[in-house]
Amino acid sequence: MFELKGIGKKMYELIRSLYPICRSITGNGVRESLKIIKNIIPIKIYEVPSGTKVFDWVVPDEWNIKDAYIKDEKGKKIVDFKEHNLHILGYSIPVHKKVSLEELKEHLFYIKDQPDAVPYRTSYYKRNWGFCISYNQLKMLEDGEYEVYIDSTLEKGSLTYGELFIEGKREDEILISTHICHPSLCNDNLSGISVATFLAKLLLELNNQYSYRILFIPGTIGSITWLARNESNIHKIKHGLVLSCLGDEGGFTYKRSRRGNAIIDKAAEKALKDSKFPYSIRNFSPFGYDERQYCSPGFNLPVGCLMRTPHGEFSEYHTSLDDLNFVKPHALRQSLYICIKILNILENNNTYINTNPKCEPQLGKRGLYKDIGGNRDRAVELAYLWVLNLSDGTKDMLDISIASDLTFCEVQKACENLKKHFLLKEVDKEAVCC
Amino acid sequence: MFELKGIGKKMYELIRSLYPICRSITGNGVRESLKIIKNIIPIKIYEVPSGTKVFDWVVPDEWNIKDAYIKDEKGKKIVDFKEHNLHILGYSIPVHKKVSLEELKEHLFYIKDQPDAVPYRTSYYKRNWGFCISYNQLKMLEDGEYEVYIDSTLEKGSLTYGELFIEGKREDEILISTHICHPSLCNDNLSGISVATFLAKLLLELNNQYSYRILFIPGTIGSITWLARNESNIHKIKHGLVLSCLGDEGGFTYKRSRRGNAIIDKAAEKALKDSKFPYSIRNFSPFGYDERQYCSPGFNLPVGCLMRTPHGEFSEYHTSLDDLNFVKPHALRQSLYICIKILNILENNNTYINTNPKCEPQLGKRGLYKDIGGNRDRAVELAYLWVLNLSDGTKDMLDISIASDLTFCEVQKACENLKKHFLLKEVDKEAVCC
Amino acid sequence: MFELKGIGKKMYELIRSLYPICRSITGNGVRESLKIIKNIIPIKIYEVPSGTKVFDWVVPDEWNIKDAYIKDEKGKKIVDFKEHNLHILGYSIPVHKKVSLEELKEHLFYIKDQPDAVPYRTSYYKRNWGFCISYNQLKMLEDGEYEVYIDSTLEKGSLTYGELFIEGKREDEILISTHICHPSLCNDNLSGISVATFLAKLLLELNNQYSYRILFIPGTIGSITWLARNESNIHKIKHGLVLSCLGDEGGFTYKRSRRGNAIIDKAAEKALKDSKFPYSIRNFSPFGYDERQYCSPGFNLPVGCLMRTPHGEFSEYHTSLDDLNFVKPHALRQSLYICIKILNILENNNTYINTNPKCEPQLGKRGLYKDIGGNRDRAVELAYLWVLNLSDGTKDMLDISIASDLTFCEVQKACENLKKHFLLKEVDKEAVCC
Repeated sequence: MFELKGIGKKMYELIRSLYPICRSITGNGVRESLKIIKNIIPIKIYEVPSGTKVFDWVVPDEWNIKDAYIKDEKGKKIVDFKEHNLHILGYSIPVHKKVSLEELKEHLFYIKDQPDAVPYRTSYYKRNWGFCISYNQLKMLEDGEYEVYIDSTLEKGSLTYGELFIEGKREDEILISTHICHPSLCNDNLSGISVATFLAKLLLELNNQYSYRILFIPGTIGSITWLARNESNIHKIKHGLVLSCLGDEGGFTYKRSRRGNAIIDKAAEKALKDSKFPYSIRNFSPFGYDERQYCSPGFNLPVGCLMRTPHGEFSEYHTSLDDLNFVKPHALRQSLYICIKILNILENNNTYINTNPKCEPQLGKRGLYKDIGGNRDRAVELAYLWVLNLSDGTKDMLDISIASDLTFCEVQKACENLKKHFLLKEVDKEAVCC
Repeated sequence: MFELKGIGKKMYELIRSLYPICRSITGNGVRESLKIIKNIIPIKIYEVPSGTKVFDWVVPDEWNIKDAYIKDEKGKKIVDFKEHNLHILGYSIPVHKKVSLEELKEHLFYIKDQPDAVPYRTSYYKRNWGFCISYNQLKMLEDGEYEVYIDSTLEKGSLTYGELFIEGKREDEILISTHICHPSLCNDNLSGISVATFLAKLLLELNNQYSYRILFIPGTIGSITWLARNESNIHKIKHGLVLSCLGDEGGFTYKRSRRGNAIIDKAAEKALKDSKFPYSIRNFSPFGYDERQYCSPGFNLPVGCLMRTPHGEFSEYHTSLDDLNFVKPHALRQSLYICIKILNILENNNTYINTNPKCEPQLGKRGLYKDIGGNRDRAVELAYLWVLNLSDGTKDMLDISIASDLTFCEVQKACENLKKHFLLKEVDKEAVCC
Repeated sequence: MFELKGIGKKMYELIRSLYPICRSITGNGVRESLKIIKNIIPIKIYEVPSGTKVFDWVVPDEWNIKDAYIKDEKGKKIVDFKEHNLHILGYSIPVHKKVSLEELKEHLFYIKDQPDAVPYRTSYYKRNWGFCISYNQLKMLEDGEYEVYIDSTLEKGSLTYGELFIEGKREDEILISTHICHPSLCNDNLSGISVATFLAKLLLELNNQYSYRILFIPGTIGSITWLARNESNIHKIKHGLVLSCLGDEGGFTYKRSRRGNAIIDKAAEKALKDSKFPYSIRNFSPFGYDERQYCSPGFNLPVGCLMRTPHGEFSEYHTSLDDLNFVKPHALRQSLYICIKILNILENNNTYINTNPKCEPQLGKRGLYKDIGGNRDRAVELAYLWVLNLSDGTKDMLDISIASDLTFCEVQKACENLKKHFLLKEVDKEAVCC
């Protein structure tokens, strides 16, 4: 369908260029990241002022940071934000003072079970300051006085997000959403950003049935903000996918929408099954990424979440170990491939009526059937028979591919050939309720 | 919820005091037993005259027995009712005569496969007399003449049952039913009697939503009689449990109501699952205890049956081996605990609507969410998110606890806290059809 | 129910007499076969002229063959139709010429993986000629000139099929269909023909509720022709079975109708389960035998397919190895037995209402219940209780036998006894929609 060869390397390069930037739910790191994405696809960048009410939430003050460190008594920087931006507790307020080890420890975050890893921690909605360090480093800290310095600002500003709308033949939209609020963490979620970016790039080149809306937003507050600002258009969203954690080498995971049996849920599962990659399917749960908001009961949108190893289930998750070594070009390419397979199903999932419903039509006289009975390679003929038998107007191509255990592609090819012979008639889309 | 420590011993003591009494479906044994129960809870005792028509049945004559024995040729009592009341075939008519061994054997009941056990046998509806003995004793009987003596009466009288009504805030009733017709058999069913009694004692101390009706009735004819006399009020019964065989150490067994998916069925299964005790669930079958009558097609009440090892599936069943050693105080206490857990679900199983259904409400600003992202002990927060996400007015708390795999208690606590913050609104009970 | 002893031998004898005949979808072989069947059951034989339009198809020209051979350079017949009629490609046009080995090979069919077997091949709708030989023979052919001779005719004539209508008490029909177009192949489908014939013979002797329509038709074009000619009466068909491959010793296979949960689907599965023979159930697929046509979306009839080892799944399938050794009298008898069990369910599957729905009726006073509680052999009593409990007018006997895991026979006996005691009332068939 598409030439994906070599695309994994480009996807990886985007991640490499975004990796050093210190992103958060607001601030210049997000802006800088969106600018890099804009070099690839023509997203619009939106700024929503701090203090804007968005449903039960308020857009927070904007946070920016220039520098941060801890110095020991000898004046040696023992923790330095410039070495790794995970060292700073996200949304730390500015501070500059001397503290005892005891007081310092109240502001240090680490993971005892992963002594080499620096954790990722934030304090968005409670004003605090802190540093994240490895447990090994923590153990080495000696009693004494430490200088802590955080050169940050937390003040009125705005929340920034990127949006790309790709107009299709239909007003109906497919939503693709990925979060852009994490600092130097590759799988979570530079991988999602990269997949969304290159997926959008491909969609821009195509003549799509659906319109597409691709969102690059800070997690939680970003999707809440977007939903609050776009409430009147949300009814157009017919299917949606949240993309995250798509660069590791684990099997795929699809988390169903809250509806559980939405078309996107069936399409994602079928695309994964057809792909032969290892995968697992999970039911919806109200935690994870922005599907939490899209699937809140007041919206209940048919939005699922595509991942490889789910967040929280790889040991590198939310630590400094989720780095450029952890994500792989071929894994990114496979993830993009699965997204395309899912969208291909949604784009082509028509419902047909067999124009010749009484008994089988004679395929042989139309050149659709072998001449000599008994040859065994009959996959294509079986697809014709399945499509003709099940096309009674109540089942779409996705239903037929699931019922027959044929791939969607096999069903699609069969439909195309049968249409050419006037053996299938498309069901009037207007006449079918969605 | 309740202080159950030490209650197992009290439950066992009730069994010990009821054990020696010779009960049947009618007669003084039942009256004496109900008097003992009345010392603990204020049951009303009802007498229904012999000959009363109850649906397809007629209340039988009342049976009482004073003495019964078999003497050998030397005049030695070789079988004595006063030693164990299982020795008498229930509802034996009076007899006093000399019989040959051959004739005697036609009136002897035993179990070849359990040579030490005296079986429990009755002949309620066909006039007969007989004795039950161990197979080992049977084998020792020598040819000769035996004196059989049964000093019983079988004449007009009444059927006796006990009933306790505990008024709750609602007219809707929960039925608890247990059979009281078995003689000296501990698990079947002094255990059920004891659990029902102490459950009623606890309910009397509480401010219940539901009204409760606790029945101590002879099996089959008792529930038929009760249903016939109370037909006009049966529509008030919204849930029900038959209690039997609750004193052995086996895992729990819940037998579903005929409906199969009644709220009581879901509540019992959830309470068992939450309890972590081993348990199994069975579908309804039209044999067992009084659920047969409550679930007959003309009533089809949502009544299940709670047991530990089911009747007929422990080798002591309906034999002299079902004695005071077979039932255990801790097993009785656990059974009571499960009953309370089930009733707790029914009492508290409200349906809520999330007052803030568009996106998640901000839990942090209400103190319901951790400050620093990344801490792992989030069970309480997950419960908030599940409850908020699923509270769309179509799912009750039980549904939510099942869907989320949270315990009902976790869901209950989450609902209480969310209500305090006006994030949940109770669905008007009047507006919901049951 | 029926005396089936010795019937396997008769069924096998019918196969033996049909085996040598060269059948195809048209022609004298079919006529000759139907005449033999007519000696056993009074089928009507129909002739449908070549050229008749039947839905999307046209009845083809009639094919007959007298002789066919290949001679080598020495004039020796190396392949001879008279030795085995599988040697001829079905519907071969007449030919008489000398050909090189190279040209000959374009007209030879064989199976490399089964070097001893002569395959069965046809070319109904594309004019061609050919021979089928074993791969071992193919390998031995030397370069040189061969004389090919086929003395066949392919010209206007008719398609022949047999039909037996057995009038029952009801207008509603059960369809039994079996294909008669295969030449010397025993399991596929002289076995189906034999089972259908002897099943019809038994049905003729009975006083059936349903009317039966038994079809002996050429595969595909035969059922299409029959459906086209009988469209106005098709609504009478309430259940149907396609019979094929019923003579091998494998376990049974029932392929569900397109509906998937039709009464025939439940009845066939229950009959197989009750029989204790090994069996498996498959969902409908739009390939196989004439169920493809009966279950085309324009008809969607409740017609399943009963087989032992399914077509294509035994290595003898469509080869000379499917011969008189491959089918067994006892296997044929078992297949007939299963058919009878299925029809017995359909014939007797009434829906009753318990006339005494409130509590159990007292079975003891009607002699339907043991006198002394505690005896263990209670299968019959359990059947009474199941039937009474579930007979609420919404469940038929088949539903009850499935829900209770009783055999249909046990349920049937229980219903008969309960009816005698006026404890069941039949639901008015007219009042129940089908």
